[in-house]
Amino acid sequence: MTDNFDLNHWCDLHLARVEQALDNWVSVDASVDQGHAAPAELMQAMRYAVLDGGKRLRPLLVFAAFEAVSSASTPARVPAATDAAEAALRAACAVELIHAYSLVHDDMPCMDNDVLRRGKPTVHVQFGSASALLAGDALQALAFELLTPDASVVPEGRQARLCRLLARAAGCSGMAGGQAIDLASVGRVLTEEQLRQMHQLKTGALLQASVMMGAACGDASAQAGQALQAYGAAIGLAFQVVDDILDVTADSATLGKTAGKDQAQEKPTYVSLMGLESARRYAQTLYDQAMAALAFSGLPNTRALQGLASLVVQRSN
Amino acid sequence: MTDNFDLNHWCDLHLARVEQALDNWVSVDASVDQGHAAPAELMQAMRYAVLDGGKRLRPLLVFAAFEAVSSASTPARVPAATDAAEAALRAACAVELIHAYSLVHDDMPCMDNDVLRRGKPTVHVQFGSASALLAGDALQALAFELLTPDASVVPEGRQARLCRLLARAAGCSGMAGGQAIDLASVGRVLTEEQLRQMHQLKTGALLQASVMMGAACGDASAQAGQALQAYGAAIGLAFQVVDDILDVTADSATLGKTAGKDQAQEKPTYVSLMGLESARRYAQTLYDQAMAALAFSGLPNTRALQGLASLVVQRSN
Repeated sequence: MTDNFDLNHWCDLHLARVEQALDNWVSVDASVDQGHAAPAELMQAMRYAVLDGGKRLRPLLVFAAFEAVSSASTPARVPAATDAAEAALRAACAVELIHAYSLVHDDMPCMDNDVLRRGKPTVHVQFGSASALLAGDALQALAFELLTPDASVVPEGRQARLCRLLARAAGCSGMAGGQAIDLASVGRVLTEEQLRQMHQLKTGALLQASVMMGAACGDASAQAGQALQAYGAAIGLAFQVVDDILDVTADSATLGKTAGKDQAQEKPTYVSLMGLESARRYAQTLYDQAMAALAFSGLPNTRALQGLASLVVQRSN
Repeated sequence: MTDNFDLNHWCDLHLARVEQALDNWVSVDASVDQGHAAPAELMQAMRYAVLDGGKRLRPLLVFAAFEAVSSASTPARVPAATDAAEAALRAACAVELIHAYSLVHDDMPCMDNDVLRRGKPTVHVQFGSASALLAGDALQALAFELLTPDASVVPEGRQARLCRLLARAAGCSGMAGGQAIDLASVGRVLTEEQLRQMHQLKTGALLQASVMMGAACGDASAQAGQALQAYGAAIGLAFQVVDDILDVTADSATLGKTAGKDQAQEKPTYVSLMGLESARRYAQTLYDQAMAALAFSGLPNTRALQGLASLVVQRSN
């Protein structure tokens, strides 16, 4: 079962699921099902921000963690349509909506003022700043809508736990808090500890929550839960270290966004703090920590989680 | 019990509770309890946006509806500290956080570009646009954090139902959707039906959700639930009609925000559509509808809901 695991195939299967689900749920039709039709212009901006782009790392982490705690599933097979699998699909889309909204707001003129994202004009360039602001706001709310369908679809206890994990990861003690620290740190010298704290909130919290939400859709033991939390923390930080490395080593075309941005804005990064080679070694150390956590988890089926950890460290964009 | 009901006293009691709770929950200390400390600068902007201002109409509606469906409570007494009362307090604060975030974002330069709110400089004037953007984002997430404490505090089924009501009311089929229609309608002529739809989403959805969330903290019969939904719809619309009336009849000092703004921005309003006198009659009709819904509810204790309906129609700011 594990010897012939094909990560690319696994990713393709799950990416197809999440793309299809996002296409269905971020739509005027879905909003009509909720009672009131969302205005078409707003939905257009929301769909532009979410569909047809992005690596979908967070949804893949949800699926991989869910698979790890679901003994019945096999690595290369889409889980059966149980309410747990439905919850995982909704969790996968919800974390991606939070990620997408944060990019929309982050790109706005009053923040990073960026015009290019995933090789396309940013949302505010395409639709105007007011629409970008509202689209981001609505995407955040939609994430929580997806997590709270009727009780017949997903048991309400599971809904509450997923909302709890996502809200904490997105808010002032998570992603939004990290962005505020980032904003305040431009042009300042940070210690490695301060830099780590900023990234733990800004990027790490949501990546870690993706893992924990996937686990919350199944039944993880306390030991497995702790191990997955450690795994999530390590790859969350590794992701940011690699981001900082790519900002100085890759070009804009490869990245799909403006390269060299951190340097130009005098933002503190792992590269500016420890140098390129040390940053690379640090990313490898974090990868090793993630692997060790999986080994400690006692879970038999962590191939997808292992594969995603290498993707995070080896990615080129 | 009902003959000597004192609405002002009732409001004072519940306002004190909500102010105290917001002061506790929108704080660095509360974020530390959640695991990570929120950055002080971000929390400062969040507190500025939320504390010491506002009529707290939405929290009061939550408390009033909760009281109406809780047979044990009496109008002038603060409910006992059951988990249902805890849920109502959290729901009251959560709707206020959503309301507060919407004001912060609505006031930003890329939206209404307003500098005065509740008689104070708006958040972006005080803290800058980037911080205002992040504070609004974090307030939305915090609303869902408040609704999802540990299961020992509020049963998870109730948490899920409250999140469901709030997310739908805040998102693209609710408040954010209404703001998008509002944005697109500047300088356009709307029919009364289009204007009603815009306001049902923009203001009505969250006011109605406040009533429904209060009811969801207790045990309402199907008939009572329907009646409270109708009550919420009527006062939600009445609130907006009165807002439009005040925009042309009150001055900025009384309103605590810029008067005559709608006219200056050529926004369609009930006054521009039907004239001042007809708008006043329409507000009275909606009040009568709200009262009729309460009479139909079969609930014995709707004095606070009745009182809040008159406040909505008779308010001067």
